[in-house]
Formats: sequence, C-alpha cells, structure tokens
Amino acid sequence: MAPESDDGPRGLLARLKAALGESALLLSEADMAPYAMDHRRRYRGRPLAVLRPADTAQVAAAVKLCAEAGIGIVPQSGNTGLSGGATPDAGGSQVILSLSRLNRIRAVDPVNNTLTAEAGCVLAAVQRAAESADRYFPLSLASEGSCEIGGNLSTNAGGTAVLRYGNMRELALGLEVVLPSGEIWDGLRGLRKDNTGYDLKHLFIGAEGTLGIITAAVLKLFPSPRSSATAIAALASPRDAVKLLGALQSACGERLTAFELFTEACLQLVLKHYPACRRPFAQPASCFVLIELTDVQEQGTVGPLAERALGTALEKGLITDAATAASLAQAREFWALRENISEAQAAEGLNIKHDVAVPISAIDDFIATTGEELARAIPGVRLIVFGHLGDGNLHYNVQQPEGQDRQAFLSREAEVNKIVYDQVARFGGSISAEHGLGQLKKETIKTYKSVLELEMMRKIKAALDPQGIMNPGKVL
Amino acid sequence: MAPESDDGPRGLLARLKAALGESALLLSEADMAPYAMDHRRRYRGRPLAVLRPADTAQVAAAVKLCAEAGIGIVPQSGNTGLSGGATPDAGGSQVILSLSRLNRIRAVDPVNNTLTAEAGCVLAAVQRAAESADRYFPLSLASEGSCEIGGNLSTNAGGTAVLRYGNMRELALGLEVVLPSGEIWDGLRGLRKDNTGYDLKHLFIGAEGTLGIITAAVLKLFPSPRSSATAIAALASPRDAVKLLGALQSACGERLTAFELFTEACLQLVLKHYPACRRPFAQPASCFVLIELTDVQEQGTVGPLAERALGTALEKGLITDAATAASLAQAREFWALRENISEAQAAEGLNIKHDVAVPISAIDDFIATTGEELARAIPGVRLIVFGHLGDGNLHYNVQQPEGQDRQAFLSREAEVNKIVYDQVARFGGSISAEHGLGQLKKETIKTYKSVLELEMMRKIKAALDPQGIMNPGKVL
Repeated sequence: MAPESDDGPRGLLARLKAALGESALLLSEADMAPYAMDHRRRYRGRPLAVLRPADTAQVAAAVKLCAEAGIGIVPQSGNTGLSGGATPDAGGSQVILSLSRLNRIRAVDPVNNTLTAEAGCVLAAVQRAAESADRYFPLSLASEGSCEIGGNLSTNAGGTAVLRYGNMRELALGLEVVLPSGEIWDGLRGLRKDNTGYDLKHLFIGAEGTLGIITAAVLKLFPSPRSSATAIAALASPRDAVKLLGALQSACGERLTAFELFTEACLQLVLKHYPACRRPFAQPASCFVLIELTDVQEQGTVGPLAERALGTALEKGLITDAATAASLAQAREFWALRENISEAQAAEGLNIKHDVAVPISAIDDFIATTGEELARAIPGVRLIVFGHLGDGNLHYNVQQPEGQDRQAFLSREAEVNKIVYDQVARFGGSISAEHGLGQLKKETIKTYKSVLELEMMRKIKAALDPQGIMNPGKVL
Repeated sequence: MAPESDDGPRGLLARLKAALGESALLLSEADMAPYAMDHRRRYRGRPLAVLRPADTAQVAAAVKLCAEAGIGIVPQSGNTGLSGGATPDAGGSQVILSLSRLNRIRAVDPVNNTLTAEAGCVLAAVQRAAESADRYFPLSLASEGSCEIGGNLSTNAGGTAVLRYGNMRELALGLEVVLPSGEIWDGLRGLRKDNTGYDLKHLFIGAEGTLGIITAAVLKLFPSPRSSATAIAALASPRDAVKLLGALQSACGERLTAFELFTEACLQLVLKHYPACRRPFAQPASCFVLIELTDVQEQGTVGPLAERALGTALEKGLITDAATAASLAQAREFWALRENISEAQAAEGLNIKHDVAVPISAIDDFIATTGEELARAIPGVRLIVFGHLGDGNLHYNVQQPEGQDRQAFLSREAEVNKIVYDQVARFGGSISAEHGLGQLKKETIKTYKSVLELEMMRKIKAALDPQGIMNPGKVL
C-alpha cells in the first residue's frame, strides 16, 4: 500500500475535509473565484481548493497535511494586496489557505498597552477594539475596512501614520506562526524588551507568507490622541516641502502624525473627477502638503501650534499659502483631496504605478531627474506624484499622455519602470516601499538587490521551508 | 604542498599580518589582556591573537582568512557587555576581532534624520555628532562614554530612553555587515520604508556577532528636545507605580521619556554608600519613580504639565508625595539616586543579578510572588529591585542577607536564578531584557525557550554560518 501522502490530490482533499470539516473546504470554481483573483484584478490563479480553517490548530493540521503531500500553500487574509502576493498560480495544484475565520481579538491589555489579534481580524475591528479600551491602534490604510491583520503583518503595511508610529513591523511585539512543518511557534510575547537570541518575528513580518503563516500577533497600543489639527499648505516646489517637513518636526516633534505630498497635477485630476471637491487656495501651486498634528492633550493645543508653525513658514517663504481646518468637516475635505487621487487616476485612464522610497534628502532630486527622463522618453507624459513624504515614500505614477493610445502606452511599461527604478537605485532607494514584492516585483527585484542579499534570502528560505511549499513563486 | 589554510595558526597569523599590517595584530599576553577579559571580570579568555583592522575591507579580509583556516572569530567593540558575549574561550585558538579602529562617522544627513556610523564609534561620540547637526540620538546607557555602536547593535542595547524612542533595534535603518564568508553585505539604506524581501538587518541586530560582523549602520536621528522636566514621586506599592505610568502616558503621551522605578531598599543602599545623596522626601516609601518629560518646544511647557499630572495623581491617592526638579542641578540629584544603585550594590557586597522583562500588567504580581518565594528560600535575603518600569524591564537583584557568608550565599545562585526565572516564565517574560545571552545565559535559555524556537535559531545559524566560526559558544 502506498503511503497516505502518495495518493494524489483526491486523497489530500479527503484528509483535509476530515481535519477541518466539510464546510471549511471550498472546491467549486464559483466558491473559489473571489479568493483566486487579486484585488486589482491583475492576477487570476487556479487553486486546487480554498481552505478555511477555524483556528490555529486547524491551520497547523492543514499545513501538516499539505506538507506531507508536498502541496504549495498560498496564505490569504483580506486579499487586498497590491502585488499579487496572495494569489495562487494557474497550475491548479496549490491550495489557498484563508485566515479569515481566525478573527478573534484574543486579549486587550490596556495596562501593558497591547492587544492580541488573530490574523483574520479586519484592521478596522482592531482599531475599534483598541478604542473600546480607551487606547489607539495607529495603523491606518485606505483598505482598513477589509484588509486583515495577517496580511498587514506579512506585507509590513504602512499608511498615513507611519511618520509618527512606524510601519506594522514596529507595531508588533510578538507572533504566533504555523511553520511549514505544521508546527506552531508560540512567540506571542507582549514585551518591549527581549534579548534572548535571534528576533524571529522580524523574519516572518514582511515575508509575504513565504516562511510560515502568521496566525496571531501581540500588537502595541498607544494612549488615545485627544486633539488634532489638520492643515494644508501650498508650496513652490517639492524642495520646499522637504524643508517644511524639517521645520515642522523641529517645532512639533512627535505631534506631527501625517505629512502627505501631492502635486498640482494630482489636484487637477481629483477636481476633474470629484466635482464636490474644491481647490484649497485660489491660486494653483507646484505642490501641496496635507499636515496632521495630534496630541494626547485636550482640544486647543495643536491647532495654535500648527498655525504658529505655518505662520513662521509663510514668513520665511517656505510656503505660499496655508489653511488650518476650522472644523472636522473641513479636515475631511482636506483629506479627501489626498485620498481621492488613486480613484481619480483610475477614472482618468491607464497609468503605471510605482510605490518607491528614497532618503528624504533625495526626494527633490529624485522627482526632478525622474520627471525629466520620463518627459524625454514619452512626450506629454503626465506624472501623478503623491505620497507619504514624511517617510520618503512616493506613489510615483505615470499616466498616459492625453489622447494617446492605451496599448501604445502600455507597451512601454518596462521602459517606464526601468527609468523610475534606475533613479530610485541611484538615490539609494527601494522599489517597493509598502506594497511588497509578491508576484509583481519578484523578477524586477533581481536587478536592484545585490546577488549577495538575494542569496542570503534564499538560504533563509531553504533553512525554514526546505520543501518550498510556503507561498511558492512569491518574493523569491 | 599543503593548501595555505592547512599550515596551522602560524601560517594564518602570517597571512593576517600581511593583510592588515603588523601593527594591527596584538599577540603578546600583555597586549591582549584588556581584550581577553570582560568588563565585569567574570570571563577570561585566551585568544590566539587580537586583530585590529582599520576599515571594513580589512575586516572582510581578516574574516576570509580565518574562514579559510576554520578559526573562530570573536567580534568585540567597546567590551562593556554584561554577559561575556565578546570574550573568547580559553582554548587559545579563537581570534578577537576588535572593531574599535572603525570609528568614523561616515555621514550625517539632518534632512533625512540619519547618521551613518562605523561599529567602533563610541556611543557618546555619536550623540555629539547628532548634536552638532542640531539633532538628537536617543540611545543612552551607563556605559555610553566607552561602549561602541557595534556592540550596541549586536546586543540590541536598551537604556533609559527606550520608553519613548525604542531599543537600538528601532534606531537602526540599515547595516553594513561582513558575513562569515568574508563577503561584505551593503545594507546601508537610510529608508523608513522598504519592503523588498526579508528584513535581514533585524537578524544581525541582537545576534551578538554569531551571524556576521556589523561594521557600520545608518541610525535614526530625532529633533532635539528643547525642554525637559525631571520629577520624583513616592508610592505605596509597585502596583501604584504601574497605575501612575498609565496615567502619565495618557496625560503626556510621547513626552514621557523615562519612567524608572526603585524601591526603598535601593534608596537605602545608595544613601549608605553615597553620603552626598539625600533622601528625596522626609518619609520612607515602598518605592519611588523617577520621571522625565521632554519636548521639542521651548522651556516652560513640560514642567507645568508634570506638576499638573503629579498633582492629579496625588489627589487620586496614586502617589504619596512628589517633587519636580527646580534646576538642572536638582534634576541631576534625582537621577543620581537611580544611577548609583548598581555601584552601591557592588560596595555592599555580593549579589545575584537578573535583567528581566515581564508585561507591564504583570509587574506587580511578579514582584510580589518572586519576593515571597525568595524570602521563603533564603531568610533575610535583600531584594534590590529597580529598572525601566516603562518598558517592563526590571533589574531584579538579590543581595546576600546582612552578615551571611559569601560562599554560602553564592552556592545558592542556581536556586535563586531558578526561582526568579520560573516566575518570569510564568508571567510570559524574558530572562534577558537588555543584556543578551552571551556566555552567561546560553545554557539557561534552553530551559525557558521552546525547543522549536531554539531549533529555528540553529537552522538560521547553520544557513548563514555553516562553518560555525562566528563567535562560537555564544547565544546558541
């Protein structure tokens, strides 16, 4: 008799069904469809099955069975990723392991300022659980209503509050991980200090599921901010925006929570596609920054501070105009100008997106030289440049020239990418600041990361996942 | 003819001399003595040689030669570690590789808020270089005048400002590392966001030199604080201290930079051995906390905030008394009460030290139950408990009963350790919060870390250092 694990996919599915329960396996094409395609509809896979385990023990059991059968596992939580990291290949032999049923908040400890959440918790639910304990969980993303903690950790998510609170990596104190063997690593420590060997959690965070499956995490909480001020400023150049950032950091310290840049071109797209949005100042400007200050102290402290700091910036000629929101409604209007850029772009037509980071001191040169190169290569090209300037992170998007043929533009994607990424590399930057590599940049990274570093990554992958069953074809 | 690397230690030393220059090798016992013993004189090794390379290329050349000869390398920077992590064994076959000549500040970028320092830079020199650029590097330790950045990174150093700024791990953005093969990994990125594969820097940070030799790092800088307030409060119990911490975090947010606990027993030791120190309040108390608030805003904002917050705490009965320093001199007096504890202990006689962390919500129970168990085991035992309460990190030191025989007390070290560490484990804590494992806790950790986690560490070690030449006998 052949060993159990040699009886093919049908045998594996039978064993998975026995371990997880029949309802935890999706097998029909219709049931699997929402899991088999990524959020932006760029990748469409064909899974053998979608597994929906109910808890960590079931995740472990499923992984063990797949490992015995040598079947690749694609972990998936909210499926809102932008790089295809949670989509299987088209071969029909990989399973998707959905974490969405692991959606319990296991503990909230306001004294330790920690919260223990399972991988399938929606980010907004974690934010709410923190609020219920009069605490604050700062990770904030466009997709927070549907993205889940497992994916946030596996892609080391960023967003609009990184300047003050750090990336998801900085917000996690401990992890629970199902290893490629099906063993469960209990690293759910809620400690600010622990120096007892290699910091394994940092290997799994940002590994996009290629080393194991994060099933739960201890997350850091913060005191709740009790006052905030939102302001918008017009500037003559990105160079001035960088100077303004420095001035605000010196004047406001950690109160500076968001510092978001967008150009006049971004604003024009938003005004065109969102008629309810209004130009913040009478005159156009080279670019704008959206600023948010928060403080644990009650209302009244950060508003005057923002006004004073922006007043000084105006006197010094760093900005050409500024407005501080007089109400929450106005603050929301300011934020809408920044937040609607992506959708406005999509409505406008085809664009080639880049999520890059460079040192903040290089942002101005990066924007200038990359823009020149692209304009030379593609006359009439439109550059939609915005992002988290305070983190050196730009969404550097290249929009097809007005009236140009879609296909003609798209055929030049590789060339556009090369121009942008070569400049990123020249300034010591990163070709993926907050979206990971997934499938999208898995090949491109080979040009921009040293052979030595790729080799170290491969050695670690081979050491922890010798069978290569964890999210095959991603990252490496 | 035998291959070069088979000609024994003499051949290796000749090749090292040729590669580094004669003056970069110390070979006499007298020259090697300061390097061969640890700071606390607990470990004394016998090295084959002490290598003092001048730059990263020489470090790489030395490692390559040692790797070819299969010779173990013990990296050492300031040699101020507390766990014997930088001391070779007594076998006479390992070399010490001192990083102290790599002491250049390679770059200061105030716009990017980064500083690039070599591993041999003294911490205080890095702090000064930051100040010269009107920036702040927050790592602050008792040994900052002699400890060096390489060791700070390799042990993930902590100190008195972790509450606000994080451990050394959180202060590093990029690394340059000489790998066990002698290859140089250039990971000197100055980016706040980079999600392009596994985060390798976090593997080397805290690895105590067992995976490679950190030769340089890009460190984060912060806006300079321009005001500070130092206060001391008397409390009826550690439980109240934990409550006060929460109240101050809610009221002051990130302004709360230090929150240091010490007990009445600690204070009595300091007063006994430092006659210039004065009791802060007329009455004894169960314990005291030293509080520091800082802000980027000018003088005058944090002082009133501290007084208000402590006033509220007094009204609520959280504290029994409080004083805010009226001058820098008085602030220094307050700090001296905390900072002289270690030396006062040494003057008092033998003690068994522990550097532990538990969740902040468990501190009170941990202190109570561990104290009871020790008092049962060793009648008259004195507990000198102090530390970084804001990080859940206690220096839990056990002092011999007054008048007891030294040897009788020391013979019970293993028993004392077991009592303390079993309680740490019970509360989900760490047996080494900020001092690493080194040689000191390399065996003990096997009792307190899961087999699975130790196995993962060994797999990573084997993947990156297959010959096992990097700091043999440490950590693992």
